[in-house]
Amino acid sequence: MEAVFSYLEKNKARFISELCDYVKFPSVSAQPEHRKDMTQCADWLANHCREIGLETRLAETPGNPVVVAKTPRAKNSHKPHYVVYGHYDVQPAEPFELWKTPPFEPRIEGTSLFARGASDNKGQNLAHLKAAEAYLKTGTELPCDLTFVIEGEEEVGSKNLAEFLRNNRQELHCESVVVSDTGMPSKKHPALTYALRGIVAVEIILHGPSRDLHSGIYGGTVDNPAMALSQLLAQLRDKNGRVAIPGFYQDVAPLSAYERKQFARLPLSIPAYQKLLGVRKLFGERGFTPMEQRSARPTIEINGLTSGYQGEGSKTIVPSWAKAKLTFRLVPNQRPSQVRAAILKQLKKLCPPTVRMEVKAGHGGEPYIVSPTSPHAQAGLRALKAAFGREPILMREGGSIPIVTDFKKILGADTLLLGLALPDDNAHSPNEKFDLECFAKGMQMSAHLWQELAKKT
Amino acid sequence: MEAVFSYLEKNKARFISELCDYVKFPSVSAQPEHRKDMTQCADWLANHCREIGLETRLAETPGNPVVVAKTPRAKNSHKPHYVVYGHYDVQPAEPFELWKTPPFEPRIEGTSLFARGASDNKGQNLAHLKAAEAYLKTGTELPCDLTFVIEGEEEVGSKNLAEFLRNNRQELHCESVVVSDTGMPSKKHPALTYALRGIVAVEIILHGPSRDLHSGIYGGTVDNPAMALSQLLAQLRDKNGRVAIPGFYQDVAPLSAYERKQFARLPLSIPAYQKLLGVRKLFGERGFTPMEQRSARPTIEINGLTSGYQGEGSKTIVPSWAKAKLTFRLVPNQRPSQVRAAILKQLKKLCPPTVRMEVKAGHGGEPYIVSPTSPHAQAGLRALKAAFGREPILMREGGSIPIVTDFKKILGADTLLLGLALPDDNAHSPNEKFDLECFAKGMQMSAHLWQELAKKT
Repeated sequence: MEAVFSYLEKNKARFISELCDYVKFPSVSAQPEHRKDMTQCADWLANHCREIGLETRLAETPGNPVVVAKTPRAKNSHKPHYVVYGHYDVQPAEPFELWKTPPFEPRIEGTSLFARGASDNKGQNLAHLKAAEAYLKTGTELPCDLTFVIEGEEEVGSKNLAEFLRNNRQELHCESVVVSDTGMPSKKHPALTYALRGIVAVEIILHGPSRDLHSGIYGGTVDNPAMALSQLLAQLRDKNGRVAIPGFYQDVAPLSAYERKQFARLPLSIPAYQKLLGVRKLFGERGFTPMEQRSARPTIEINGLTSGYQGEGSKTIVPSWAKAKLTFRLVPNQRPSQVRAAILKQLKKLCPPTVRMEVKAGHGGEPYIVSPTSPHAQAGLRALKAAFGREPILMREGGSIPIVTDFKKILGADTLLLGLALPDDNAHSPNEKFDLECFAKGMQMSAHLWQELAKKT
Repeated sequence: MEAVFSYLEKNKARFISELCDYVKFPSVSAQPEHRKDMTQCADWLANHCREIGLETRLAETPGNPVVVAKTPRAKNSHKPHYVVYGHYDVQPAEPFELWKTPPFEPRIEGTSLFARGASDNKGQNLAHLKAAEAYLKTGTELPCDLTFVIEGEEEVGSKNLAEFLRNNRQELHCESVVVSDTGMPSKKHPALTYALRGIVAVEIILHGPSRDLHSGIYGGTVDNPAMALSQLLAQLRDKNGRVAIPGFYQDVAPLSAYERKQFARLPLSIPAYQKLLGVRKLFGERGFTPMEQRSARPTIEINGLTSGYQGEGSKTIVPSWAKAKLTFRLVPNQRPSQVRAAILKQLKKLCPPTVRMEVKAGHGGEPYIVSPTSPHAQAGLRALKAAFGREPILMREGGSIPIVTDFKKILGADTLLLGLALPDDNAHSPNEKFDLECFAKGMQMSAHLWQELAKKT
């Protein structure tokens, strides 16, 4: 193992430059104009996996291809098999003007590498590839067989991954799936995440007059779609920060006293947290702490509003339509289909007869929870401790990785969530970054992990 | 006068082609990128006035210049003097994709000329210039001295016109101001407008976190500015379509029984009106007819909403800020300053402590009302009747021409509103048009008007 760790140490600078190459691709899956960048990014990644020594192929899907890269394995290998999941697609970079430097031109400042996708998920996933490279290039025997599955549609709901998993169920049969796409509270607190929130996305468009109308000539005789939308949205969250949709909370599993105790152990300074987010005052569901609110309670968020004139100055119109993009975060044991039905029912009930409502149901993902005391989780905790030299903590994560549910349903495998992102990594925000120390420790953690996992089997 | 009318008839085709040249300028005063187009449009117009035979100058202002063009006058002229007001700036053309043909490439279909500004106000104002041309080019004596005042900032609140009027008060001293920038119910209903609504514009920005946040990682702990904005806006209009701001209605003059009778005489088919606007159901202040709602009652309109991600697909963020553009239409005797103060007070009261509110007070304009039985108004009615061959009607207009109040205050002059726009002219909307029959009748009306006005003095 010495050879592995010395290889990781010696090649640090090259790994960083490779990550820079990787994040240069504007692989924004949500935006059709980046289709070509998606392909180029997938090609680059596949070639990189081949250079590392992995048996690599691009698996086509109706959308973006999946990179499948396997460690070379003995004929009748009896080694335990693990799938390492990641994604090469990134969030849209808008609003561009808030980036200090362009999102797809990586910039290093101190120990931070700034670029869209640096943390979510290119950097985190690359750490695992580099650990595999270290084993392969030093001729050190890997105690496990590994298959990297790196998709290009995570940020748009992984709509083709389930089908891919079903089509490759045998090849992907594994002990567990390993994913680094979550966070840790600080560099001093390496963390294993045992639960994730799910998601339901909905887009609402209220149609009013057939065109924008002169608000002087016609204003006062027709409903204003932007006002109708505001009044509709306003009714979806109550004063206590709760989602005001009948049936929304019906399947929410209450937090156990044990879990609330774990939450209370997590480091959180309210003033520091407020400063981090740039708000004067926090706001969340009454009766829960911020740590609980952000990871163990369901939410409603308006992600975007669009209506009428948005340019400089004023334009005196009654806009023809108004649109809102919404996402709801779900917790165990909410089901996206039940929640979506409840949302649509309430929207229909609230929509006034003066506008026509169009609802586009977006992606959905189930929440996830797994036992932190399983042998896999324990191996993960040991690997974290070995790499970071600190006692790791157990946590829930507020984000969604919908495909974790697919791994369970289709492959029958639990997922080990070993996140390397820091709270100020600005995932999904302007000036996203990845900490290069976390990058290096992540490689070490991955190198340890296969040893620890092999021990337990 | 025969020479005048025959000149108008013979040169019809050229006039249309000149209007086409005029509307080709994208003179959008609200958008800084069109500053150059503003200048070029003003230059074109000034040259055109000179060719007609008017003594023309460009009066500079801190914003766009005012075109001042005078009929040549005798040394100690005792003719009555009238100011003809118009504006060469136009509304923004967005959304471009809804235009059948580009907004600044005029297209003639039947008797309609499609282009941004065709009706509001280039075509309507040009009709008066063409009538003056007919007098001047045929050597027919004009019974009145005329001064055309054509500004370039009407669509952004005429912010420099009052100062211009003050600086040129003596030169502009006049019997009355003549403006064609309003509408008539149909070609069969030429109309004199005796009242206008005022306006107050306000822009609200709610600031939340210092950047867009990942809604999974942080969602649930901070207020969502788009939701806060929706909840704030929702409270500004009640179920009865009334503006829910204390003190907003305090100065509203009640409609007299006589006025409500006049309104009832105006032609309006509800199904045809709904079809025109493309709505299934009308909505307005309870207790008033649509004709009253659109012209004699105050309103609140959201002109635009902006927040977060607006592109394709979804982006799971808590947006950093949310913005709404609002305008309120005012009626006699509301005062913009009093109304604005009432609005700001209520906004402050409603804004939650979880977001920071920024309010930009936009332009304001007072409502206007004048007696329809004055000699000027009577002359206007006769000119309309002579040109259109129909009994003109008296009406209120829902739009705002804030400078009408300035004419009263600064020049001491009432304004004759002789609108030539039809209800389906799409002023401020995509596919704006001007009816070429109204253009022709408008020239005749203007030619008659100076005769009728001279009679009365």
